[in-house]
Formats: sequence, structure tokens, C-alpha cells
Amino acid sequence: MTETISPPVSDAVTIDDIRAAAGRLEGVARVTPLLESPFLNALAGRRVLVKPECLQRTGSFKFRGGWSAISALPKDTGGVIAYSSGNHAQGVAHAAEIAGIPAVIIMPADAPALKLANTRAHGAEVVTYDRVGGESREALGQKIAAERGLTLVRPYDEPLVMAGQGTCGLEIARQAREAGVEKADVLVCCGGGGLTAGIAVALEAEAPGLRPRPVEPEGFDDMTRSLETGQRERNPAESGSICDAILTPQPGELTFPIIQRLCGPGIAVSETEALHAMAQAFLRLKVVAEPGGAVALAAALFRPEAVEGDAVICTISGGNVDPAMFTRALETGP
Amino acid sequence: MTETISPPVSDAVTIDDIRAAAGRLEGVARVTPLLESPFLNALAGRRVLVKPECLQRTGSFKFRGGWSAISALPKDTGGVIAYSSGNHAQGVAHAAEIAGIPAVIIMPADAPALKLANTRAHGAEVVTYDRVGGESREALGQKIAAERGLTLVRPYDEPLVMAGQGTCGLEIARQAREAGVEKADVLVCCGGGGLTAGIAVALEAEAPGLRPRPVEPEGFDDMTRSLETGQRERNPAESGSICDAILTPQPGELTFPIIQRLCGPGIAVSETEALHAMAQAFLRLKVVAEPGGAVALAAALFRPEAVEGDAVICTISGGNVDPAMFTRALETGP
Repeated sequence: MTETISPPVSDAVTIDDIRAAAGRLEGVARVTPLLESPFLNALAGRRVLVKPECLQRTGSFKFRGGWSAISALPKDTGGVIAYSSGNHAQGVAHAAEIAGIPAVIIMPADAPALKLANTRAHGAEVVTYDRVGGESREALGQKIAAERGLTLVRPYDEPLVMAGQGTCGLEIARQAREAGVEKADVLVCCGGGGLTAGIAVALEAEAPGLRPRPVEPEGFDDMTRSLETGQRERNPAESGSICDAILTPQPGELTFPIIQRLCGPGIAVSETEALHAMAQAFLRLKVVAEPGGAVALAAALFRPEAVEGDAVICTISGGNVDPAMFTRALETGP
Repeated sequence: MTETISPPVSDAVTIDDIRAAAGRLEGVARVTPLLESPFLNALAGRRVLVKPECLQRTGSFKFRGGWSAISALPKDTGGVIAYSSGNHAQGVAHAAEIAGIPAVIIMPADAPALKLANTRAHGAEVVTYDRVGGESREALGQKIAAERGLTLVRPYDEPLVMAGQGTCGLEIARQAREAGVEKADVLVCCGGGGLTAGIAVALEAEAPGLRPRPVEPEGFDDMTRSLETGQRERNPAESGSICDAILTPQPGELTFPIIQRLCGPGIAVSETEALHAMAQAFLRLKVVAEPGGAVALAAALFRPEAVEGDAVICTISGGNVDPAMFTRALETGP
């Protein structure tokens, strides 16, 4: 058990930031339920509690961070810009749509068609870049932001965004308590680490018996390896996984210190395990998970030896998946 | 038995029954959220609020009625028996499993494989009968109940079951108010009418501006026709629709008078519209609907001229669908 006096001043986001974000999100973001199935419990050999953020507005937890950031901007803002593989894009685009401000979103050209279409449908201007060619989305984002006077909303290394994602952790703390679970690993689908860090800070304050742990796809397990070596490791590639939602070059500069301080070891799962978990979420929970959003459930179900305790909690971080990929998951079978 | 009181008092289920059931269900059944998507709103031309009972325990609203009935039985009960196309089966089987009492479930031999398997997995003994051959499940149920001393839990013509389903209406009343909707049609997927009648009684008391209306598959629109003629009409067939969950021979004896008193006209949709609605629920809400569970959403989206007002509320009554049928819905496209 970690002894906590007060969070180190170096943390980019505090529990107070998260509580303030929760106030701004109330009545705008959705409180997602905590689901459980006796069939999944039997499969995993322990209770499995699932936080389906696919049911959040725009189909992923990213709306929390997008609205948290945009709702904190000055009223006379000229608009926002964001770069994203698709879920942050939709979260920011829809939050800007609700706030009535312009949004420019920089997306990889190979992002799923559904994510590109939805982002445009939320009224955002979409600019695509070549992920495989190694173009820097960060540089492109900063250039357009400067040219047009837009505020950049970073996908994870942004305290207001991390605070928004942390509201998911406040809900997990309360809902796990209601479900009678005080001690468990909390498996979080992890890309840059915004959701993981936000949940970690929330749980530290409100449910210290719940231990957050990042889960990633094999081959893109930069956070898991970074936790092992103690420094921010890079992935060998930036694309080439069906788990498009959680592919980032390396852990965030602001998220990593928090994750390092508060999280247990990471877990990496295979693409096939992610597809199996999507099929289980369909069959047993009746929710739609995308591959990247299913990695934590995959770890809960198929890596029971990697988890401790009588219960495990896991996020389904998003459900923005094209029908063809979903059909592939169903054909892969549970 | 002389009955000379006015119709409202003779109703088989009252708001007090529903509130009592809500007390028994608290902490056992799930409070499902009320979902909304700007894309569905645009498609329907009005706000569409969706109550996804597919997220209920056992994947359909039927758990509410099953637990409502079983939790009201005397402690020394010898067990329960039920007949069901599959969702009531799972709801009663799981409720009996939680209560620790035996359950025998009579199911049509042509019920979806998933529903048969799940019912058995909840520890129930499954007895199949031939739906096409015209065997009476009611007669079979009463025979086994008498032989083994089991309490029959009817799927809809049972006041305790109707009261349980009515708790869904209490949630709709509160959640619609929170969403700023005071006046709207509430479209309910309708088989025997237990959910429709239960919701109707709940809304009458708690949200009188919300008007319940049954929705059925074309060719199996016994409730819609019964509302037109003022008497309980029969369907020409008892099987042969993909909407297996909501095929019943005719409206319930107890449910029909309530529905007649409180509901607006019924709506019948095609199988293709139900499949399209399943694809929309996948794409826009990230939930899994079965064909019978998607008919109300289909009416909300594809029969806008049949609905009145600036907003419409609809149930997704269940999500217990085999992967092959779900893939067919995705291939049919949104």
C-alpha cells in the first residue's frame, strides 16, 4: 500500500482538477454503467467488472477529455485544433460542436473510415497526414494552430484532458464500491496514457485499494516497457496494428510520471486476443468494442495469471469500429 | 367473483406494485442508461432517446420481471417453471440461480442456439417443444408445474412480472425528465405486452406527457390490430420471423386492457427495417440489439411520419442474437 501525504507537485493533474472537471462534465458527458456477466466471471475465474466507455458520447472516453478542455476555455476562443487517430478527433469535434466553436482535426490518412466520417459529421474540418511516412502530427498541429489562432487540445499530454479522463476513475471508484469490490486490479487500455493517468489519480484519492495497470497491444507496448526500464521507451513502429486507437510513439511526458508513481506493471495482449474479447463483449455484455478498446478485457479474460485478486475491473475504451472489422471479430469467435 | 369497479382499479398491475418491485430490484437489476446520438437524431428528424435493455442482466428486460416474481415467492418454494422463446427463459433462469432455487424452462426447439445455451448455463433444466407443430407451451408448462410442485412464472400475464417490467418505465420517466423531455411517444417492442403494459402504468403515474405505443414486426402485429378492433386478435402464424423474441399468438388477457386504456396506436415495421436499426444501434450507440429488440428503434428511425412530437423514446428490449444474424444486419447496412 502506497502511503500518500499529498501528490508530488510535479503531477500534471490532481484530484482537485479531476473533481472540477467532473463538475463541468455533469449533465453533458454520460455516466457509463459498470457491467458484469456470470459467463465472463466463469471464463476469467474471478469477477470481471467492465466499464464500457464505448457507451460514452462519440463512442469513446475521449469525449470526457475533449469537453473538459473546451468547457474550460475562455468564451472568446477562436476555436480548437487537435491531432488524433480518431477517437480524440470525435471527442473534440463533438465537444466543439456543442460549445459552438470551430474545430480543425489532424488525422492519419489510414484512420478507420468510420472515424474520419464521424469527425467530419460533427462539423470539424479534417486535415489528413501520412502516418506511415513518419510525418509529425505534432509539428503539423502546432503550425496550423499558430496560423489560425486556434488552441491546441493535445490528446493526452494536456492537464485539462487528463482531468476529464480522470472522471471515468471517479465513477469506477463509486461503482466498484457499490458492487462490493474494494480491492482489485483496474486494467486500462493505454495509448499515450491520458486515461490511465487520469484514472490512477482518481483511484489514489477515492479507492486506494484499486490498482490501475496499463494494457497494450503486443508490439506497441511502449508503456509496459517504460514501466520496466523506468524511462520513456519508443515503439519500433507507429502503425500496423488493428488496435489503431491506442498506438502512440511513446508514453506522454506528463502522463508517464503519474503512471510510474501509481500503476502496477503493464500487460500486452495479442491482436487475436483483442478480437476474441470483442466477441465476448458482443456475446456477454451486448456492447460494441473496437480492437484497441478491447485489450483490457482481453487481459482480464485471457491472461488471468497476470492479474491478482478475486475481482478485476477493466475499461472498454471505445467502440468505433468498422462493420468489416467487427464481423472479423465475430468470425474469430469467442 | 363480482367485479364492479372502474377499469383503472381493475388493472392487473398498479403503480404501487411497480414501486414495490423497484424496491426488490434495487441493487440486483441494472439501471440501464438512456442513450442519444446526434446522428440518429439527424436521421429521425427529432431527438431519439434509446433505453438499451440489452444491457440489462441476461441481455434483456426480462430479468426485471423474472427477479420481481422470484423475489416475491415464499422462502420455502420448491422452484419455478417458465415457458419462453428465450429471453424470459434466461431472465427467470438467472433470477432462480441468484435465489438458489431450481428452474425448469420450456423453450421452442427452434429458439436461437445462444438463448438455449445461455438458459442451460444459468443452471436451468430446459425442455423443448415444437412451436411449428402447434404444441401448446402453456399446457405443457402447467402439466410439469403440477407434477413437480413448481410455481409457474408466466412471461407476461402475471402481475408480478408486469410490475418488474414496469420498473423500466420508472427509469424512463426519470431519465427523460433529466434529458429535458416531458412530452414524447415512447415506442416499446411488444410481444405479449408485459413490458408495454408495465411501462404504461409507470408513465401514467410519473410522466403523463409520455405516451407509450407498442411496436411489432409486420405479419405479427396482433397488438396493433387488437388496438384497432378493440378485441384481442390472433396472429396468422406463431413463428417464421427473425424477431423471435416478440412473437406471441395474441395479446395477453391481463396486459391488453391496460394497453388499450393507456397506449397510443401500434406500429408495425418490416424485418429489413429491424435489421437496419440493428446496424444503426451498432454504429451510433455501440450496443447490440436482436431483431425483435430493434423494432421500436426501427419505427423511431424509419417511420418518422408515424410518430408525433420533437422527441421520441424507444426501448431496445434485448440483445441476445447469434453472431450470424448480427453479421447479416451489418451486411444489410445502416
